[in-house]
Amino acid sequence: MFFASDNSGPMPQAILDVLAEVNTGYTMGYGADAMMDEVRQRLRDQFEAPDAAVYLVATGTAANALALATLVEPFDTIFCSPVAHIEEDECNAPEFYTGGAKLTFAGRSDRMSPEDLKAAIESQGNRGVHGPQRGAVSITQVTEMGNVYALNALRDLCDTAKAFDLPVHLDGARFANAIAALGCTPADMTWKLGVDVAVFGGTKNGLMGVEAVVFFDPAKAWEFELRRKRGGHLFSKHRYLSAQMAGYLRDDLWRDLAQRANAKAALLHDGIKKSPDIEIVNDVTANMIFFNAPRKLHQQLHAQGAVYGVSSSISDGADEEVIRGRLVCDWSLPESEIERFVALL
Amino acid sequence: MFFASDNSGPMPQAILDVLAEVNTGYTMGYGADAMMDEVRQRLRDQFEAPDAAVYLVATGTAANALALATLVEPFDTIFCSPVAHIEEDECNAPEFYTGGAKLTFAGRSDRMSPEDLKAAIESQGNRGVHGPQRGAVSITQVTEMGNVYALNALRDLCDTAKAFDLPVHLDGARFANAIAALGCTPADMTWKLGVDVAVFGGTKNGLMGVEAVVFFDPAKAWEFELRRKRGGHLFSKHRYLSAQMAGYLRDDLWRDLAQRANAKAALLHDGIKKSPDIEIVNDVTANMIFFNAPRKLHQQLHAQGAVYGVSSSISDGADEEVIRGRLVCDWSLPESEIERFVALL
Amino acid sequence: MFFASDNSGPMPQAILDVLAEVNTGYTMGYGADAMMDEVRQRLRDQFEAPDAAVYLVATGTAANALALATLVEPFDTIFCSPVAHIEEDECNAPEFYTGGAKLTFAGRSDRMSPEDLKAAIESQGNRGVHGPQRGAVSITQVTEMGNVYALNALRDLCDTAKAFDLPVHLDGARFANAIAALGCTPADMTWKLGVDVAVFGGTKNGLMGVEAVVFFDPAKAWEFELRRKRGGHLFSKHRYLSAQMAGYLRDDLWRDLAQRANAKAALLHDGIKKSPDIEIVNDVTANMIFFNAPRKLHQQLHAQGAVYGVSSSISDGADEEVIRGRLVCDWSLPESEIERFVALL
Amino acid sequence: MFFASDNSGPMPQAILDVLAEVNTGYTMGYGADAMMDEVRQRLRDQFEAPDAAVYLVATGTAANALALATLVEPFDTIFCSPVAHIEEDECNAPEFYTGGAKLTFAGRSDRMSPEDLKAAIESQGNRGVHGPQRGAVSITQVTEMGNVYALNALRDLCDTAKAFDLPVHLDGARFANAIAALGCTPADMTWKLGVDVAVFGGTKNGLMGVEAVVFFDPAKAWEFELRRKRGGHLFSKHRYLSAQMAGYLRDDLWRDLAQRANAKAALLHDGIKKSPDIEIVNDVTANMIFFNAPRKLHQQLHAQGAVYGVSSSISDGADEEVIRGRLVCDWSLPESEIERFVALL
Repeated sequence: MFFASDNSGPMPQAILDVLAEVNTGYTMGYGADAMMDEVRQRLRDQFEAPDAAVYLVATGTAANALALATLVEPFDTIFCSPVAHIEEDECNAPEFYTGGAKLTFAGRSDRMSPEDLKAAIESQGNRGVHGPQRGAVSITQVTEMGNVYALNALRDLCDTAKAFDLPVHLDGARFANAIAALGCTPADMTWKLGVDVAVFGGTKNGLMGVEAVVFFDPAKAWEFELRRKRGGHLFSKHRYLSAQMAGYLRDDLWRDLAQRANAKAALLHDGIKKSPDIEIVNDVTANMIFFNAPRKLHQQLHAQGAVYGVSSSISDGADEEVIRGRLVCDWSLPESEIERFVALL
Repeated sequence: MFFASDNSGPMPQAILDVLAEVNTGYTMGYGADAMMDEVRQRLRDQFEAPDAAVYLVATGTAANALALATLVEPFDTIFCSPVAHIEEDECNAPEFYTGGAKLTFAGRSDRMSPEDLKAAIESQGNRGVHGPQRGAVSITQVTEMGNVYALNALRDLCDTAKAFDLPVHLDGARFANAIAALGCTPADMTWKLGVDVAVFGGTKNGLMGVEAVVFFDPAKAWEFELRRKRGGHLFSKHRYLSAQMAGYLRDDLWRDLAQRANAKAALLHDGIKKSPDIEIVNDVTANMIFFNAPRKLHQQLHAQGAVYGVSSSISDGADEEVIRGRLVCDWSLPESEIERFVALL
Repeated sequence: MFFASDNSGPMPQAILDVLAEVNTGYTMGYGADAMMDEVRQRLRDQFEAPDAAVYLVATGTAANALALATLVEPFDTIFCSPVAHIEEDECNAPEFYTGGAKLTFAGRSDRMSPEDLKAAIESQGNRGVHGPQRGAVSITQVTEMGNVYALNALRDLCDTAKAFDLPVHLDGARFANAIAALGCTPADMTWKLGVDVAVFGGTKNGLMGVEAVVFFDPAKAWEFELRRKRGGHLFSKHRYLSAQMAGYLRDDLWRDLAQRANAKAALLHDGIKKSPDIEIVNDVTANMIFFNAPRKLHQQLHAQGAVYGVSSSISDGADEEVIRGRLVCDWSLPESEIERFVALL
Repeated sequence: MFFASDNSGPMPQAILDVLAEVNTGYTMGYGADAMMDEVRQRLRDQFEAPDAAVYLVATGTAANALALATLVEPFDTIFCSPVAHIEEDECNAPEFYTGGAKLTFAGRSDRMSPEDLKAAIESQGNRGVHGPQRGAVSITQVTEMGNVYALNALRDLCDTAKAFDLPVHLDGARFANAIAALGCTPADMTWKLGVDVAVFGGTKNGLMGVEAVVFFDPAKAWEFELRRKRGGHLFSKHRYLSAQMAGYLRDDLWRDLAQRANAKAALLHDGIKKSPDIEIVNDVTANMIFFNAPRKLHQQLHAQGAVYGVSSSISDGADEEVIRGRLVCDWSLPESEIERFVALL
């Protein structure tokens, strides 16, 4: 009963197959491999963006930090949620890659409102040379709390950014899960709303470690390439990144895997939401469930073999204290495991 | 007839097999996977260094830059050859990761002499607060010109560094090829001589993209971990890095692959060294051959299908002008291709 | 009626006299001047800290950023008030000098409480390698809102920092005003409470541009010197910095100037606090007064020649809207100007 | 007999007078002072550059590093002499301010030839994304070895830079001494030749600590302002920088001081050049003399009270070993001291 993360499961056989397919002969490295041509074309097709500049890196932190460093100057600030991955889980990678830019929080939760964002932007950049300048807006979709912005909500955020002439970065570590939840196209969720750079994540949806960075305006493509190389994120044997992403895009595997993950979360949600001991705290439309429950219950679930994260110590503290749990469904999760978990409740 | 690089070939089936082996179930990410335990133990055994701190990253640039950033301060300078990979081929990654340290060249060729190194060190750090401070010594083995330092030569460089109390970094992108050429152990070539941090490369010797960074003194291990994360080089699905490295270490595959690559270079060397049109300019004991030849000859070889790098334009210039070619033998290179190439001459 | 800032007035004649005194003959540069010996001794005496390492720089931003960069690592975060000068008014200098460290806010106002600080510290550094590490605590005395921490309050903050083993930086741009308000000694307000590095400001208290950075533990003194030079903040003709600081320290001029500035603010405060149109919002014990008043009143005051800052546009908006004004008293402010201002109300 | 540096003498009374003149009343800070308007106008007039953006900072290292950071990207390299101040005497400030750019040497001496520069530029930027990109050319006039480039020589360097579309930075720490030596105008020595950004130094020519940075194209002026603030180099009480520079520019004081310094060096040169024990190694047209002499002679001169720098230990080594001395003439140097020194020989 492994619900700890979607970065802990296996890759589908189809991906292994493409790795084997590409594992022959000699190819030019550093992104000049033929399979990257396929990837580039497929991504442009998926995004309906024939001019997009498309790059692969191996981690989400690299994708975000490099994209942001290409968008902002070191004397700028980036507007984001206080629980954004770029704030909490990248060990200052954005500050490092941007050369010292700052993050400014919009609102206090995972989903920024346009009002939150407007207030945050207006709070900065009004001190002339003394304070940080307004740099970019970063939005996470699916959010770090498992919520999915509706397209209207995203559009409002993008409009707010544009009213201040700021570029928009989309942290799409769970891009596919959001697409599956919303039933829209990648274009619908990105450039049609005003997103300038999107991270199209693969690692949390079945790949070994690949994220695509998609610049809808290729003007800064070369700068991104230099920053990627300088960051040590350009792979010599790039074909193995290409292969993963090609396998992911062929036959809409990416969408299929995300639908599976989301469906499993829905199943789990259905099974537990009526439990009187549990309070679900997010809108479960993607593949994550956050819930409050007494420590005692968490202890029992863990004792029975459930593996998932909790917001504070599971062993130290009062039995009845309510603490938060996080359940994440990997594409590969057996339904039987979900049923076992539900049965425990 | 692909001699362009050893970063362009396939991985051995054994590596694919371990990827498949590890591709099941759920594991903790970020280096806490069970297979990393195997890797750690195997590397410590290979290096006869039971206390060594061992980390995996996916690129050689990341391995070098992170290791150096852990060794030096931003106001330091790093002593290296002027043709070192960290100088010529990392797009300022060392300057970036160190926060602005400098590189100072020792000598003018790929192989530093102890005298070169001593002179370089003495040329710096003697201006008090005004100039850069002495930071670290970086040695590449096999060098970027295909030469292999003898153990005595390495020892002299380490002794020189130690006389100034400087740590030594070994860029071992072709570590295995050097070991195969010298017939020594990893310990013989590293900490027994005074190397403090070694990069044990896999990517140029058959892996998809993995390099181990080995700190013989673990005092700075945690700092390295933070710098790796901050650089976006910590993999969530770390098991796939571990799997490659485990496959590489099992049954001494790493040594076997390097011996094959070196043997192929020796075969090629034997085949071409007597050609009157060619001058071999390095000591061919690893897997690279540098040679001078008239442009006309390079044109003919390329026209016949040989793929390899040249030091200036192959098409523009006088036929008789001597330019340099670089032939690199991948572990997977068919001997028939070598024979075809030799036959062309 | 100039109340806009304490960085806009003249220097006392005594400082000009020391500049003239030192303006003769040849001296070694870069801090090796004889007058710096005097400054070092006087500061150590004032701080009752015979081993302190003492340095001069020309701006408060440099003093803060260099001190913090010496205390923290690039993967750390610094705990401070959300209105700290290092957050709002240094255009990302702390992020720049630290190589990309982050700032985390304690509480929501200018004066941090120990509980705020504890909560902020506990909110960070608990994600292992993923999040920023706990770096240092930065306290501003006098705060940016004109408040002065009591010694007990400072001690509680220092104790909280020490409970987490964090060093404490004191931004003392108005150090002298705080000392004058509290009637204590520099030692009482710094190392006796647990402050590790104090900025002893001169620029806002009558000097042209000099701040002393005082490290009570000299262990990192050399690192600071290198960072200062690398930042371009080491003056060749250092004697002119020394001269300003010597003049400031001789005959307790620094204390005298601060007492004058504070007394003028008290006079101003007495004159305006009873005005029904005005609400004073800080504790006026140093040299700054923050007050709320209707826009109309601000307009009238400005029209009569009062110069001071307001929190939003003085011209655009409803007459009755309450906006905030900031009155700062320079040491040199004529009492007649204060009386004129009071009379306007 | 102080010949150690031109950063160790007093300022002229005229500068102290302007400091006193400006030391009254209240002015806006941060460069918005009225005296800066005078400075801006005077510099534009001197440079015949009505659109130039003009800024003041307090140190030469800050001026160079900020100017270069505005010109280049962190993945670039800057072409300069191996003895450039930015290489040897700024403790990695250029690497720091640029975010990790590199320096590449043109030639091996203080004066770059166009061929040297061309070769250096061509040696970089030809490895695609792998190596550093070509960023800017930095020229020092007067060079660190006391030589003055002829205008033709400067033009050739600028033309070489322009052939590669690179901007040119002029490190003019001794700008005035060069102008005095060449008898030309500031425009003749800068934008008319192709210089994009010039540092117009004051500190080595009589000021306490002020350098002007002149951007002939103001397009990047705002970026420079942000970088200056972020570096802690924006002075709140800016009028005291302005005052120094105003005093320097009024009545051509800057030129007068430089002529005096140069004339003193000429006098000194005349007095010593015929000494059989001395070999002058630079072209003495500005205010510095480099000379070779046996250690014994240096010892004797020092014992008699001469103060100047030598290239290696004056006490340890063979008497007859030839080592290099550096004599620098400050504007304020009494002729009697020169005569005393000459008499010693």
